[in-house]
Amino acid sequence: MSADRPLILVSNDDGITSTGIRVLVECMKTLGEVVVVAPDSPQSGMGHAITIGDTLRVHEENIFGDVKAYSCSGTPADCVKLAKHHVLADRKPDLVVSGINHGANTSISVLYSGTMSAAIEGCIEGLPAIGFSLCDYGAHASFDHIEGYVKKIASQVLKTGLPKGTALNVNFPKKSDGDIKGIKVCRQAHAFWQEKFDERYDPMGRRYFWLAGDFVNHDKGEDNDVWAIDNGYVSVVPVQYDMTAHHAIALLNDEWDI
Amino acid sequence: MSADRPLILVSNDDGITSTGIRVLVECMKTLGEVVVVAPDSPQSGMGHAITIGDTLRVHEENIFGDVKAYSCSGTPADCVKLAKHHVLADRKPDLVVSGINHGANTSISVLYSGTMSAAIEGCIEGLPAIGFSLCDYGAHASFDHIEGYVKKIASQVLKTGLPKGTALNVNFPKKSDGDIKGIKVCRQAHAFWQEKFDERYDPMGRRYFWLAGDFVNHDKGEDNDVWAIDNGYVSVVPVQYDMTAHHAIALLNDEWDI
Repeated sequence: MSADRPLILVSNDDGITSTGIRVLVECMKTLGEVVVVAPDSPQSGMGHAITIGDTLRVHEENIFGDVKAYSCSGTPADCVKLAKHHVLADRKPDLVVSGINHGANTSISVLYSGTMSAAIEGCIEGLPAIGFSLCDYGAHASFDHIEGYVKKIASQVLKTGLPKGTALNVNFPKKSDGDIKGIKVCRQAHAFWQEKFDERYDPMGRRYFWLAGDFVNHDKGEDNDVWAIDNGYVSVVPVQYDMTAHHAIALLNDEWDI
Repeated sequence: MSADRPLILVSNDDGITSTGIRVLVECMKTLGEVVVVAPDSPQSGMGHAITIGDTLRVHEENIFGDVKAYSCSGTPADCVKLAKHHVLADRKPDLVVSGINHGANTSISVLYSGTMSAAIEGCIEGLPAIGFSLCDYGAHASFDHIEGYVKKIASQVLKTGLPKGTALNVNFPKKSDGDIKGIKVCRQAHAFWQEKFDERYDPMGRRYFWLAGDFVNHDKGEDNDVWAIDNGYVSVVPVQYDMTAHHAIALLNDEWDI
């Protein structure tokens, strides 16, 4: 690959054969040299899981034309680690992009999201990184209304980089919600999943459960990602891997008697 | 169970049969009524993964004497969700504790840690929550030097609660490091795993990889968890599930031209 164009690593959590990653590869090809390292099977909800008690397999795949692509038996975070330290050991990527996820990763979902774990892993490795998600779970979701925004945001990050220790969590409204009004840089909404467990019995009469639930937004603000999506904007949340609640340190030191 | 003693939910990521959870159950029995919901197999490195494309199994287990215990086929985060919304649907726990993990969860490991994902899931559910980890990977690690601290920290949290949206990441030095000097409330260190992939070939001649690597600390501060452990203190880091890099929002709004 030529060294004059930026090198862009593409990963995801829906697996290397998903429509979303195919759209992302096409968008990134207009901006630089692309290499794909993505899971060989769906990894939704894998959070920041890594494979530490088992082996990893990597296979070169020929499904993106002239774009080098590798499937990996591990998690999204594994894919980015493996890309950085093995597949691309000779040349550091200029940008890591993950997605485009089939479904929303707004608010608290950033913690459960395999898409975002690939981006955050890139960030931990010191690389500018973006996770893209489309708020449409439909099997035949349309991506054409967001391609311009994907390229614009990736171009911006290639040009100016990102603040140290931060990655971007980008969500897009679905096409049927109408024309996109623009981009909002915002915070993670205080919204949560209200879980329910669906209790069933298998053909042998043994009980099992499905995790189910509804997304509930208690956040009245207009500066958060759920508001942005609900109002027709692209949401861009800068996220960090420092999980310290810095404001709580002095509080605990004052209050605690140990 | 009687309602006059606090209800304490115990989970972990090493699995319900591990030594660490047994020690934690014994400690918590001195403070309240204990219910265990923990993975039926080791789940180290699972991060904040949840089971969304597969079923969950739950079995009552009789391995903790008179303490009610349930094994779950899912991740640590699944266990806490299932405990809150199914097993303990009639009575909200007063405290969620996870661990005691066999191995360190300092610094960036908070992201990869199944132990911490159980605690953070408790926090998302609005419950005071603590993850405990012993910085000793030995199969026969000793826990007796930390039991007093585990009880002390859990008692403190039962008494005063925790700031909204925060959980505690508590790490303990290993016994052979000598007497514990005390407790330090601190921040997550800027330290990272320097990955290496160990390349091998299976008996069929096919290549596979093991994730390996070294923990590298570039943080010169004395207010972080790695420093605390290295200097004989118990580290207590308040962590939050809001991953927004709030400081970066204004910066992106100023810099970006989109």
